[in-house]
Amino acid sequence: MIKLTGNAVVGQSGGPTAAINATLAGVIRGVKENVHDGNIKTLYGMKNGVEGLLEERLVNLTELFSDDAKITGLENTPAAALGSCRKKLPDPAKDPAMFEKLLDIFKKHDIRYFFYIGGNDSMDTVAKLSAFTKTRDYEMCVMGIPKTIDNDLVVTDHTPGYGSAAKYIAVTMQEIIRDCAVYTTKAVTIVEIMGRDSGWLTAAAAIGRAVNGCGPDLVYLPEHNFSMEEFFEDLRTMLEDHPNVVVAVSEGIHFYDGKYVCEGLSTGGVDVFGHKALSGTGKALELAVKAELGCKVRSVELNVSQRCGSHIASATDIEESVCVGREAVRAAANGVTRQMMTIDRVSTNPYVYKIGHSDVSKIANQIKIVNPEFINERGNNITDAGVEYLLPLIAGETKPLYDRGIPVHVII
Amino acid sequence: MIKLTGNAVVGQSGGPTAAINATLAGVIRGVKENVHDGNIKTLYGMKNGVEGLLEERLVNLTELFSDDAKITGLENTPAAALGSCRKKLPDPAKDPAMFEKLLDIFKKHDIRYFFYIGGNDSMDTVAKLSAFTKTRDYEMCVMGIPKTIDNDLVVTDHTPGYGSAAKYIAVTMQEIIRDCAVYTTKAVTIVEIMGRDSGWLTAAAAIGRAVNGCGPDLVYLPEHNFSMEEFFEDLRTMLEDHPNVVVAVSEGIHFYDGKYVCEGLSTGGVDVFGHKALSGTGKALELAVKAELGCKVRSVELNVSQRCGSHIASATDIEESVCVGREAVRAAANGVTRQMMTIDRVSTNPYVYKIGHSDVSKIANQIKIVNPEFINERGNNITDAGVEYLLPLIAGETKPLYDRGIPVHVII
Repeated sequence: MIKLTGNAVVGQSGGPTAAINATLAGVIRGVKENVHDGNIKTLYGMKNGVEGLLEERLVNLTELFSDDAKITGLENTPAAALGSCRKKLPDPAKDPAMFEKLLDIFKKHDIRYFFYIGGNDSMDTVAKLSAFTKTRDYEMCVMGIPKTIDNDLVVTDHTPGYGSAAKYIAVTMQEIIRDCAVYTTKAVTIVEIMGRDSGWLTAAAAIGRAVNGCGPDLVYLPEHNFSMEEFFEDLRTMLEDHPNVVVAVSEGIHFYDGKYVCEGLSTGGVDVFGHKALSGTGKALELAVKAELGCKVRSVELNVSQRCGSHIASATDIEESVCVGREAVRAAANGVTRQMMTIDRVSTNPYVYKIGHSDVSKIANQIKIVNPEFINERGNNITDAGVEYLLPLIAGETKPLYDRGIPVHVII
Repeated sequence: MIKLTGNAVVGQSGGPTAAINATLAGVIRGVKENVHDGNIKTLYGMKNGVEGLLEERLVNLTELFSDDAKITGLENTPAAALGSCRKKLPDPAKDPAMFEKLLDIFKKHDIRYFFYIGGNDSMDTVAKLSAFTKTRDYEMCVMGIPKTIDNDLVVTDHTPGYGSAAKYIAVTMQEIIRDCAVYTTKAVTIVEIMGRDSGWLTAAAAIGRAVNGCGPDLVYLPEHNFSMEEFFEDLRTMLEDHPNVVVAVSEGIHFYDGKYVCEGLSTGGVDVFGHKALSGTGKALELAVKAELGCKVRSVELNVSQRCGSHIASATDIEESVCVGREAVRAAANGVTRQMMTIDRVSTNPYVYKIGHSDVSKIANQIKIVNPEFINERGNNITDAGVEYLLPLIAGETKPLYDRGIPVHVII
């Protein structure tokens, strides 16, 4: 392992979360801690990820965050303070031009450390840049730091950002259940939660059950094929027991033939990574249940609030998110490269974790789905093992600063 | 004013809020304070408002809330712990049977005090019961205590429950604005907020501007006729300035001819009070903007979370909500009757209020809309006078109790 001396650059990529700025704060803290007699000099931030880096849109974070209170403020700021992008890099072996341009920019600014905070698609960028830099005579450290509310990255126990989204969902679900309980008329409330291919976020809707025995009556994840007949049967059974039935569904649930439940209402568009653009699963089910059961039905889409709800972030998630950023810098400063940082669970009760790292090329472009033992046999709820596994990730409340009732966010 | 000796009953009615249980807690505290040498003996709670009262579904709140910590827990519990109803009582002059039945129940349980916490339709119930009891030889005190996130009751400066919904909306709007700012591509985000006839809730989306200068680019309320042409023009102007345009709209906005914007997508149903059942204003606008401007458009419906978001309640609202319940008991114990409690604003800066009361028969079935000076001339945003007026209502954060990351709610 070679210890490089030079500047560092950090970027944020992919969808916003309540914790990606906490990881950025961790990287800033890590560089600050290294700066005395260390090998990392100035920390630059790339605006809008590699998209902005290619246009040399850099900010000097070492200067901008000389004040510690501002770093703490950043920890409680949602979304992505540096801006984000969804740029997919080409295969460097086939199309090296973009990478050559990046290399020129690195050389120009004496950048020897590259930290990229993102999800699956961002780790693909890290893996490609890692592969490319190996082939050039410019020594560089390239590190991926995980972030995704989806919690679908392999190797790491869970991803920074998931715990806060999970807490938003678990808390909101408790409030919705209270809200639904006030009337005596039969009613079904369907809560649509994000999650294209994995049901981690939707599973979080059930976490409260581990504490107070109360959760949604039915929970459907993309990991289990969905059947309208079984759904109607489940609803009828629940409605016989009590008048207010609350259902949590992933946006990505699909029928046994693989078709998305929402497909009838979908525009059929795809995003730049080729993912199907989904919407309206809850609405589609609402209309179907209304027609079948004739009772009052409502659908609620938690939408973007579940990924940017900093005001109800998980203190555990924010702590881990800072930690993973700071440890990425420490590892890099000690010569580690081409790795993605990981959170390794040591034990669940009491909850103990440690920070590790793993070869990024073995992580990118894979999806971690919910463990089968966390879903019940009928495929309509989360098991006790599941809620107990998830519970520590939402522990603790943060103390964001408020000014006259409005949260104080740090804008770069 | 006659001081009656006997028991009291309290009920909750209409839509859930984050503060109606705080008012219930205030009534419980008020009775507790009165009970030594006072004239109010036991406090009963009616399950599901007058609907449950007619079925004698009563709970003994004096017994259930002997523990003070449980009352504090109730203050931080959303929805309506006693359950609610949307029952409209008939005109007592034409159809007294239901009122005679209520009178029998009052006599049977020696109930001399009737407290009803609710909105416009609930104050109609209070006014009718007040009118009826005047005509009978059973002395009774009948008091209305306001509650509605809509803030549309006349006489009172604002309503308990509004401040917490406003805070949820103002904070969520800040987070959505951060979320929308991360990408550089042109995009319009339309946030649909509750409000059938008045725009108070939607106006709250702009409150943050009074603190940090940042709010939605465009805000449309039902108080101002809506025009698609003006809307497209407003969007084009904003998109020229910056790529991420955020719009707040009331569900109840309507065109110059009076037709609701959402009417194209609406089922045309009405609720038991004859209100049109609205949905999909944001979605309808999303589709229209997509077709007209061709850029990325997203709609977000805040939905029920805005009315039950106890975890981000306004400390000012919760304090006032408790206060108005406690003062209702104090006034009633001193012989006041047939009144609705009010919050009277003494000054805005510093914010000072006092609790008063006013003849309920002059309050029911009226709607208070947003002051014209709070809406700009173009009808597409809130004025500085408006955000400054609203700002004190969201001040302060509550400290709800959490158990392993999940808020502790009190279930009756």
